[in-house]
Amino acid sequence: MELLEKSKAEKVNAGKRAGKHRMKQEEINELLVKLAKEGKSVLRLKAGDPFIFGRGGEEMEYLAKNGVKFFVVPGISSAVAAPACAGIPITHRDYDPAVVFITGKEARERLNWKALAELNATIVILMGMNTLEENVKKLIENGKDPETPVAVVQWGCCRKQRVVCSTLKNIVNEVREKGITSPAVVVVGDVVRVRDKIVEFFEGFFDP
Amino acid sequence: MELLEKSKAEKVNAGKRAGKHRMKQEEINELLVKLAKEGKSVLRLKAGDPFIFGRGGEEMEYLAKNGVKFFVVPGISSAVAAPACAGIPITHRDYDPAVVFITGKEARERLNWKALAELNATIVILMGMNTLEENVKKLIENGKDPETPVAVVQWGCCRKQRVVCSTLKNIVNEVREKGITSPAVVVVGDVVRVRDKIVEFFEGFFDP
Repeated sequence: MELLEKSKAEKVNAGKRAGKHRMKQEEINELLVKLAKEGKSVLRLKAGDPFIFGRGGEEMEYLAKNGVKFFVVPGISSAVAAPACAGIPITHRDYDPAVVFITGKEARERLNWKALAELNATIVILMGMNTLEENVKKLIENGKDPETPVAVVQWGCCRKQRVVCSTLKNIVNEVREKGITSPAVVVVGDVVRVRDKIVEFFEGFFDP
Repeated sequence: MELLEKSKAEKVNAGKRAGKHRMKQEEINELLVKLAKEGKSVLRLKAGDPFIFGRGGEEMEYLAKNGVKFFVVPGISSAVAAPACAGIPITHRDYDPAVVFITGKEARERLNWKALAELNATIVILMGMNTLEENVKKLIENGKDPETPVAVVQWGCCRKQRVVCSTLKNIVNEVREKGITSPAVVVVGDVVRVRDKIVEFFEGFFDP
């Protein structure tokens, strides 16, 4: 990132933050094509991985439709990084044999909640704070054990990272009491218990 | 990796390949503690992410139990990277609203297949070639549409990468015919269709 700041490359900030978009997705797509057609080498730098709820797929489709060649470099999603930096392995042989990634908003609209609640998988929720209460309710209503451990990792991997651990039935009150807000990653599953075992010796990984 | 090769650090190869283990997990755990207790700075370099079926959780627990302080640096799992390097976004707004990661072997033994088949999620299977036939069968038996697109990415992100796309009902024959074997990542879901739309303009990302 520092190298990019120092370079002579033209920089365009297309960043998004829940609700406040500097550029619309359509504008970003068009800009990528426009700059490429001008003969420029374009680096589209996305936060995290382009394909874990990152709309990289749509950008690829738009580029292809407009005849622009490209390649994709995978990255580290906060779905993976934030739990890791909180000492929570999203998979572990002693616990659920799978992990599922969802987002708070997309899940609300079109997810099969019954299947999600019944699947023995760790659930990682991105952008899940605004919908936390209703999504927790849906999980419990669909049969997920209310005692399932839950962690919320705010500002994962940053120096100001905060972690709150609780249970499915209590997490909404806990984050409210402690003032935990977006950006945060939510982890639902028995793997959260690992943090308790190791936290005393875990030094974290801050501001790399 | 090249930097590590050139450095003066003592190197120990603890690598694994399906079935052929240079060192057992218990031996790795003990070695990490032994070297740390000797006062050394120990870098445990794992392929991909330590917490996506990487047994990093067990290593953390062993370190903590033995009083060794540590931190964890997240990485890029082949579950994310191999599909990306094949032009397949594992999530996309036009398709399933979730993605689930499983491994062929662990899934066979203890996964809720009915819930998996009913969940509207992209399924990414790691280490899934030996169990592909039986796992495909289980998905179909539990209600997953036999026409669901499937991609198998062998040697993902390497120059020798090979990709086979088919459907759930035909993939086993396809990989047999084309001689696709481990190491490979399997992607089950409508997102596989994106590859068709973009592959002509997709240049891949080889041997970074």
